[in-house]
Amino acid sequence: MQKYSFKDDYSEGAHPEILKVLTDTNYIQTIGYGEDEFSEKARELIKEKINNQNVDIHFATGGTQANLIVISSILKPYHSVIAATTAHIEVHEAGAIEAVGHKINTVETKDGKLSPDLVKGVIDYHTDEHMVKPKMVFISNSTETGTIYSKKELTELSEFCKKNKLYLYIDGARLASALTSEKNDLTLKDISELTDIFYIGGTKNGALLGEAIVINNDELKEDFRFYLKQKGALLAKGRLLGIQFLTLFKDNLYFQLAEYANKNAKKIADAFKSKGYSFLSEPATNQLFPILPDELINKLHKKYDFYVWSKIDEKHSAVRIICSWATKENDVNAFIDEII
Amino acid sequence: MQKYSFKDDYSEGAHPEILKVLTDTNYIQTIGYGEDEFSEKARELIKEKINNQNVDIHFATGGTQANLIVISSILKPYHSVIAATTAHIEVHEAGAIEAVGHKINTVETKDGKLSPDLVKGVIDYHTDEHMVKPKMVFISNSTETGTIYSKKELTELSEFCKKNKLYLYIDGARLASALTSEKNDLTLKDISELTDIFYIGGTKNGALLGEAIVINNDELKEDFRFYLKQKGALLAKGRLLGIQFLTLFKDNLYFQLAEYANKNAKKIADAFKSKGYSFLSEPATNQLFPILPDELINKLHKKYDFYVWSKIDEKHSAVRIICSWATKENDVNAFIDEII
Amino acid sequence: MQKYSFKDDYSEGAHPEILKVLTDTNYIQTIGYGEDEFSEKARELIKEKINNQNVDIHFATGGTQANLIVISSILKPYHSVIAATTAHIEVHEAGAIEAVGHKINTVETKDGKLSPDLVKGVIDYHTDEHMVKPKMVFISNSTETGTIYSKKELTELSEFCKKNKLYLYIDGARLASALTSEKNDLTLKDISELTDIFYIGGTKNGALLGEAIVINNDELKEDFRFYLKQKGALLAKGRLLGIQFLTLFKDNLYFQLAEYANKNAKKIADAFKSKGYSFLSEPATNQLFPILPDELINKLHKKYDFYVWSKIDEKHSAVRIICSWATKENDVNAFIDEII
Amino acid sequence: MQKYSFKDDYSEGAHPEILKVLTDTNYIQTIGYGEDEFSEKARELIKEKINNQNVDIHFATGGTQANLIVISSILKPYHSVIAATTAHIEVHEAGAIEAVGHKINTVETKDGKLSPDLVKGVIDYHTDEHMVKPKMVFISNSTETGTIYSKKELTELSEFCKKNKLYLYIDGARLASALTSEKNDLTLKDISELTDIFYIGGTKNGALLGEAIVINNDELKEDFRFYLKQKGALLAKGRLLGIQFLTLFKDNLYFQLAEYANKNAKKIADAFKSKGYSFLSEPATNQLFPILPDELINKLHKKYDFYVWSKIDEKHSAVRIICSWATKENDVNAFIDEII
Repeated sequence: MQKYSFKDDYSEGAHPEILKVLTDTNYIQTIGYGEDEFSEKARELIKEKINNQNVDIHFATGGTQANLIVISSILKPYHSVIAATTAHIEVHEAGAIEAVGHKINTVETKDGKLSPDLVKGVIDYHTDEHMVKPKMVFISNSTETGTIYSKKELTELSEFCKKNKLYLYIDGARLASALTSEKNDLTLKDISELTDIFYIGGTKNGALLGEAIVINNDELKEDFRFYLKQKGALLAKGRLLGIQFLTLFKDNLYFQLAEYANKNAKKIADAFKSKGYSFLSEPATNQLFPILPDELINKLHKKYDFYVWSKIDEKHSAVRIICSWATKENDVNAFIDEII
Repeated sequence: MQKYSFKDDYSEGAHPEILKVLTDTNYIQTIGYGEDEFSEKARELIKEKINNQNVDIHFATGGTQANLIVISSILKPYHSVIAATTAHIEVHEAGAIEAVGHKINTVETKDGKLSPDLVKGVIDYHTDEHMVKPKMVFISNSTETGTIYSKKELTELSEFCKKNKLYLYIDGARLASALTSEKNDLTLKDISELTDIFYIGGTKNGALLGEAIVINNDELKEDFRFYLKQKGALLAKGRLLGIQFLTLFKDNLYFQLAEYANKNAKKIADAFKSKGYSFLSEPATNQLFPILPDELINKLHKKYDFYVWSKIDEKHSAVRIICSWATKENDVNAFIDEII
Repeated sequence: MQKYSFKDDYSEGAHPEILKVLTDTNYIQTIGYGEDEFSEKARELIKEKINNQNVDIHFATGGTQANLIVISSILKPYHSVIAATTAHIEVHEAGAIEAVGHKINTVETKDGKLSPDLVKGVIDYHTDEHMVKPKMVFISNSTETGTIYSKKELTELSEFCKKNKLYLYIDGARLASALTSEKNDLTLKDISELTDIFYIGGTKNGALLGEAIVINNDELKEDFRFYLKQKGALLAKGRLLGIQFLTLFKDNLYFQLAEYANKNAKKIADAFKSKGYSFLSEPATNQLFPILPDELINKLHKKYDFYVWSKIDEKHSAVRIICSWATKENDVNAFIDEII
Repeated sequence: MQKYSFKDDYSEGAHPEILKVLTDTNYIQTIGYGEDEFSEKARELIKEKINNQNVDIHFATGGTQANLIVISSILKPYHSVIAATTAHIEVHEAGAIEAVGHKINTVETKDGKLSPDLVKGVIDYHTDEHMVKPKMVFISNSTETGTIYSKKELTELSEFCKKNKLYLYIDGARLASALTSEKNDLTLKDISELTDIFYIGGTKNGALLGEAIVINNDELKEDFRFYLKQKGALLAKGRLLGIQFLTLFKDNLYFQLAEYANKNAKKIADAFKSKGYSFLSEPATNQLFPILPDELINKLHKKYDFYVWSKIDEKHSAVRIICSWATKENDVNAFIDEII
């Protein structure tokens, strides 16, 4: 590839520290399937960050895998999951959730976020055994459209779920970018306290692959490893996931990488703003959705790769620009210089 | 872990060359989900070794994942798969195949291998729509008990399957150990010509993780990436799998590693033999199942880790000893010295 | 129940002729599971009405069962089915379609009917293996909102589906009411020629239970009885379904019953119209959705049972009134007298 | 069919009293989906016979449907069910249990019955999350080979299951024939007290179709109607099932019919015994498995239909002879006269 890419946050390999630790520990013999000392240590570090010893932590290889395992481990066959129409599980997982047997009840949102009101509409509609029974609320933070939940929003949603016996699950593929956003007021501890289960995304924040599923609700902990095994998620060399999370969580690297990605995204966002462009959703994380004239898009596309997200009108489209832990500041500056 | 382990072939990380190439290519930007240049190049190399351009190759993260995807992609809901009672899919995948909807029709074998006769018994038994319809034969090479198929055996089974419209699938988690066995007379090309689909195992032969699924039968190729995605197998950083197979297949490293593992296993096998011990199955690959007096087992267990496989009589048990690409010759020699 | 019910078309048992034939044939011994002489004869009669010997016909016990079997027999795991948001499979089957693994891609409609344009929107949106692949169009005729497809509409939809390699399936729970509507210009033969598969509903048109699945497309015929068996639809006393369809199709009883139901519904519709009331959808079949003042609803509810379908404004709601083969004209007249 | 059939207990329609009550109640309007007055009354009658008001009762249309719903409603995705190799769910349900995601762990038995010892072997073998977790024991009474459980046997099995946290489920397709066997010492009350869930078979004992699922264990009761609906088992005209069970249980007709069937079977069994023939399993219910010379089989086949069950040696086979509520004594006597 010749053009520099702002298409996504998984274009490069892993943060070099991860490769270094993989290399340094390479010949140490461990037992397999996630019970090795590295995975154990990684779990301990994450529990410390969450400030709660009473959670269970398991590693999966990617977001779709984490989602399908979590959801199928919790829901009974007639239960459904409530999600935004823009949710990753609804749009971009090739029917993974339905393939494990569950309907997704979707809700139109204005910003990719669910609220008690939106969820209430769904549960009020489902009244008897001729319909599915909604039992889980799925949200992403940051969302698929780059927005984030405030502590107030998440607290209200959490309380609503508890009151209505709905499990609350956060897809944290880009949790790091959310928690290091300038606009964020949530901590990892809050996330853990306000949800039943969530995952901490590694793949999009410096790992080769890997997501850490955190189970807060005791009810959901039993026999979870059976689900991992049955869905093909229990890696023989589980150390691969353990070592990566251990490295990311040892010296706060995980949050530093996301902060760096957000910072560069903000630079680009500010550049677009200074030229008067608006956005599909207000920039908050490492994903930007500026609305640009097609001419400018064509100009930028000559040197840069990025997705055209949606057509806005005859002459404008929204595009998606993503920065990552690996984005180089030089490239950001050069890109900004092209914005007219 | 203090004791040296002969428990399995996934106790260490990856062959160092793999880590080196991962590091060297780390900052190259690629597109995701297995369509990157490294994965493409790995596919080309494998096609060369198979000596057939007309196969499709896809990467998965592990054996259970590969098995559940392959089987669910091929079978219709009422189809079953025929396997030995010792088959990995029957015993050690936590019901992964049933979880995607398919019955496994099992057959008792004496050596973990299926033959036309054994398969015929199953299909003759299934006569109408009140029963499942067997449609696939699942074998492992090398098998779960360390045995391998000869070219004659595989050819006969392949012909029987074709005649009876059964798909033939090889789980190749330890295909490398089979193809480099002293007793082997099959090539990768034979495997490809005699089966509809098979996978080339990486995890147990030097990779961090990864299996390469090879689809020979044109009927089975369509839309295979949908299955990968739906089951959570399409890694965002697909390069991780591509780079590993590229490295393993560039200079024949893949077969060298297996040969090395087999050679050390043979050394140990010969040592047991020279002391007069017999085996559950005749040693052929990197897995050994010697039958030992419990006293000797206890003695060996003081310094070495390995599985006690099955009780033979009041004073004897079979154990499993595995050598891998990472087994050190010093440790092999030291272990042999303990055999009395 | 004291009040006379216009709630649905399954409040009574079966047309008396059915009970008579069941009784008359009761002691004749037959083989089981739908291969009896009565089922065979019923199939022949239906083929005559369709005027096509080259269809396969199977009986199921109800609509949800027919839908889940048909859809799961046709779609591969990554395929989805396109349906209106009002479709029975989307709303009122407790997630039966997702439980067999398939996503339903829903489309908002104004009258419960799909058109090529609406379907095109869905298939254009689904571009790659990160999403499901739509492969089937599900429609109901008459629809869940009482509307029917014209020959022109169905022909256009059928042609669009063929062109885009989508299977077209009609849920015919109320097919009889559609085909005997005053506004209908479709025949059973047309239905068979324009679709890949459909079912002829018995339960809501005089049978105790039973739907006749008609497979027009040769590709979809293979091994269908395995699906019936696996989903628990193959009745030991398959004669129960065969005898009912034989009775319904021997002397055109099937269409006479629906015509009668439609006629009474029309009487009621005309009565509402004459008082100036409008309808959610223009009356065409045995289902009416008049929009009434809440006062009138309360008045009618004193003597009659029927569903309040949806709130229209502060003072008005739409209700659902259904006539069936068993509706008595006296009750229709008495009901009409209450309309003010 | 010309020849008189002893092939099964579902060759005729329904006991005439059932058809009479269906006819008498035909025009009574009821609400649908099993909540009608007839179904309620049937439930009450069954509860009386069980002598326990604290059970939940639901109706299904057939045995495979009942089994797949019961099992999928109880087991989590990684749970398996333990059954005899001869069990209906293992052999004759076209993979229905696997299709809802569960492995069947089979055990060889000598008489189609499970015992604590046989079950223990299975659970001891399953040690960790690489394997399924057995969670339910499935037995049939009478069994698929015509044998029955004694009170002692069922009590021991029940206690073992409780101790090992396994659910005990009885497939009662032929429960009536078991409970009215001369050798039986179990009551319906015992069955209910000793199991977590079971079903009372109607189809094979005089009903057109229908099985009554009885849930004894409170844990298993929640939301059961969702499962019925999702699997297509909730009949719009649920009265059809209710009326049948009401008729069967009103005046003990259910047990009278089975007693009559058993009595005729015993007559035939005695006739075979008097000629010196032995049996695959000792006759106890309405199913007989005499071992006959092929010559006699050929002679009998000229006038009678029945299954040849299994080849015994060069000159002998076991056959299956079944009597039912509808078997005529004249035919029994005529058949006996042919035995030489």
